Amino acid sequence: MSTEKLPTRSENFSEWYNQVIQRAEMADYAPVRGCMVVRPYGWALWENIQQALDKRFKATGHVNAAFPLFIPMSFLEKEKQHVEGFSPELAVVTIGGGEKLEEPLVVRPTSETIIGYMYSKWIKSYRDLPVLINQWGNVVRWEMRTRLFLRTLEFYWQEGHTAHATAEEAVEETVRMLNVYTDFAINEAAVPVIPGKKSETEKFAGAVDSYTIEAMMGDTRALQAGTSHFLGQNFARAFEIQYLDPNNSLQYCWTTSWGLSTRFIGAIIMTHGDDQGLILPPRLAPIQIVVVPIYKNDQEQSKVFAAVQQVEKQLSAWRFKVDLRTEVTPGFKFNDWELRGVPLRIEIGPKDVDHGVVTLARRHLPGKAGKSTLPVDQLSIQIGNVLDEIQAALLERATHFRDEHIFDPNNYEELKEVVQNGWAFSWWCGSAECEARVKEDTKATTRCMPLDQPEGKGTCIVCGKPAQRKVYFARAY
Amino acid sequence: MSTEKLPTRSENFSEWYNQVIQRAEMADYAPVRGCMVVRPYGWALWENIQQALDKRFKATGHVNAAFPLFIPMSFLEKEKQHVEGFSPELAVVTIGGGEKLEEPLVVRPTSETIIGYMYSKWIKSYRDLPVLINQWGNVVRWEMRTRLFLRTLEFYWQEGHTAHATAEEAVEETVRMLNVYTDFAINEAAVPVIPGKKSETEKFAGAVDSYTIEAMMGDTRALQAGTSHFLGQNFARAFEIQYLDPNNSLQYCWTTSWGLSTRFIGAIIMTHGDDQGLILPPRLAPIQIVVVPIYKNDQEQSKVFAAVQQVEKQLSAWRFKVDLRTEVTPGFKFNDWELRGVPLRIEIGPKDVDHGVVTLARRHLPGKAGKSTLPVDQLSIQIGNVLDEIQAALLERATHFRDEHIFDPNNYEELKEVVQNGWAFSWWCGSAECEARVKEDTKATTRCMPLDQPEGKGTCIVCGKPAQRKVYFARAY
Repeated sequence: MSTEKLPTRSENFSEWYNQVIQRAEMADYAPVRGCMVVRPYGWALWENIQQALDKRFKATGHVNAAFPLFIPMSFLEKEKQHVEGFSPELAVVTIGGGEKLEEPLVVRPTSETIIGYMYSKWIKSYRDLPVLINQWGNVVRWEMRTRLFLRTLEFYWQEGHTAHATAEEAVEETVRMLNVYTDFAINEAAVPVIPGKKSETEKFAGAVDSYTIEAMMGDTRALQAGTSHFLGQNFARAFEIQYLDPNNSLQYCWTTSWGLSTRFIGAIIMTHGDDQGLILPPRLAPIQIVVVPIYKNDQEQSKVFAAVQQVEKQLSAWRFKVDLRTEVTPGFKFNDWELRGVPLRIEIGPKDVDHGVVTLARRHLPGKAGKSTLPVDQLSIQIGNVLDEIQAALLERATHFRDEHIFDPNNYEELKEVVQNGWAFSWWCGSAECEARVKEDTKATTRCMPLDQPEGKGTCIVCGKPAQRKVYFARAY
Repeated sequence: MSTEKLPTRSENFSEWYNQVIQRAEMADYAPVRGCMVVRPYGWALWENIQQALDKRFKATGHVNAAFPLFIPMSFLEKEKQHVEGFSPELAVVTIGGGEKLEEPLVVRPTSETIIGYMYSKWIKSYRDLPVLINQWGNVVRWEMRTRLFLRTLEFYWQEGHTAHATAEEAVEETVRMLNVYTDFAINEAAVPVIPGKKSETEKFAGAVDSYTIEAMMGDTRALQAGTSHFLGQNFARAFEIQYLDPNNSLQYCWTTSWGLSTRFIGAIIMTHGDDQGLILPPRLAPIQIVVVPIYKNDQEQSKVFAAVQQVEKQLSAWRFKVDLRTEVTPGFKFNDWELRGVPLRIEIGPKDVDHGVVTLARRHLPGKAGKSTLPVDQLSIQIGNVLDEIQAALLERATHFRDEHIFDPNNYEELKEVVQNGWAFSWWCGSAECEARVKEDTKATTRCMPLDQPEGKGTCIVCGKPAQRKVYFARAY
């Protein structure tokens, strides 16, 4: 760990973000431009995210599979909007086994096309539907401006791809998976996202409707943290995904796709972190509890270590680590684990041992505010509750911060002001012109039209025409 | 499921293999030459393999991480033997974001080079050692002759990469991971592998010593099912992976790498399968038990379904499926699940219900031999034992088959004969010339010098010179 102080979030949020990731050993820059290495601590967080999502996918009837990394260039060209959206971002393999390839292969930026091709082979009858498949993997998009986790050339994600007999079922699936993401974000990551629909301008290349969960970061900018798309019959027609209905008549399927990526790690960092470093939600933290023994001499050490052993036995149900390093002081260890965002620290010194207690320090409440003592023999009974309280406190804090920074401006002038330090929640006529004007004037874009809409109607905050829906405007990552 | 009969293993093993994989919906050919799609049933098997291995990796102190898919071409060139070994097999990205790249990027065929580069950044002091990192991911090798699971352009695997302060520790790690693979293969997959050392000719490009687990397939050919490499200081010198020792003097690290891939699925299929289809070992099978209700009319149906519900409650600790399809007969279902290799079938008919029993049918013992009845209320107590017995029986059968097909020929003429239908276990002088002669005469290669060597010395089966070690010669996949 570097001993230099982190930049504060208020003085340079972006630099704070970059440094905290590298110092906490979450990720590092790779020697290939725009690529990252996810280090073990970061990957352990991703594995916990994967487990929490995968459990939910399986509970809603999905199975996992693996489709190829390489897609023939001609496949992308079959869906017009899709290829227009992705062609500037492609990595292309032109040489294989020392020979120039007849048809270049695209490194998948997303897999609708190749999965569509396979579905057209597999799906014959209405009895084969729905097909509910998810894939965990890596994809590549040739981005010019990259940032660790948020936007990298290669990233890790899951992409769900489903095929249905009717439009209704496909829309239902799209919204179901949006709800799965919302539930995951709120209840596992303590990130209070807002689920909603994207505008026509902001939707996925090839979708009929795109849905998103939008999160507010610590600098009030918005982050699209997961998306779910209703693809209509666009890909089914491009790849001839057809089935025989019960009347023996050939029909096109209706498809969906939905994805959440390592970008979400960026959301966790920027939602909860503080000037001391990361703060990880207990349910996802690779290390939930760190135990730091404190002693000055051999006598104290043997006394404290005996207590540590007792404590270890009581922590077996949690992800914990005992920091036995001798080359650094307890104070160094405190800073180190605070930087890494371990939600709960247990300190054990000779006085604690004398009183049969341990000292708890809650990461999100620095200093005395987060400290308390607990009888050693209560640990296994109480520690789950303490972690639950921390989880709840993180969600409450993030929700409070978000709600404090969502504004309802009275007019366009006010909108331009509030989006400099928050989100505007405003009536919008739905026109791309009004969206474009806001973007030009403020850099803010429409983030989503929340599923949960207020009653009534209003007038567009930009042009004053009648508006059916409210939308969030915000500067975004 | 196709109703056409599978080719038998004895008439066409290779065609049996291809068809059983596709009919059981384990995998399918992708529209890109040499690539495969791993379908949900195959991927569920891989997920179980991953869990069984990952648990062992973590128990031996390893952590997971993720390194980039793309490697600068110049990195591969830093280790001479490595680039010679891999350059004919590379897929190369030459275009990114619409522009020709200044330096082409290789799609990783294996990650020693890029991981070596990162280790040289991360490792400073002896306190940072050992570094014990594993990666689960995809790699690409441009193979000309491909076969589902066994050899595909893209495949899935784990690759462990470790760095140590001393040669002894690195060798110890290499052998430790070979033992982990052996333990996994035997105790989870019921594949009785032989762990041993590769010859100089057969070792990994860039290794000092390569170790392997070799398995015998149902046609007696050998399959290299996992490898573990002692890399010496080859990659440490190429990438300057150095550390300060306790005397503050700069030293090169000693590194290892080890991998096991989706190829292992091929090993499971070809070890256990029979003319009816797959036979999956219970510990790894995606579906351990299938329940097939049998009834002729509504009255029987309601009686049988009530019993099925009771059975379901007792099976909650296992991976099971109840086949409720109405459009096919029980006989069709039996064949279908036999093709898919589900190790245990539970049949419930009206007579079973009358007697308070269920009928068990063990996949590896077709017909009456594998059938027995069990009182319904004994299911949750007994079913674990039944699955354990099946697991043990598969291992015993495969071991017996292997041992029956390992020969100790008396002379070179006999060797040439026995390797047509088995392995030869013979003294070998160690020379590449003798290896090459066997290969030319018989297509058999040296598979490994087992760790467990017989006492004494002998004379080379090929040239008659003194020999220190026995080696397995076999035709291999």
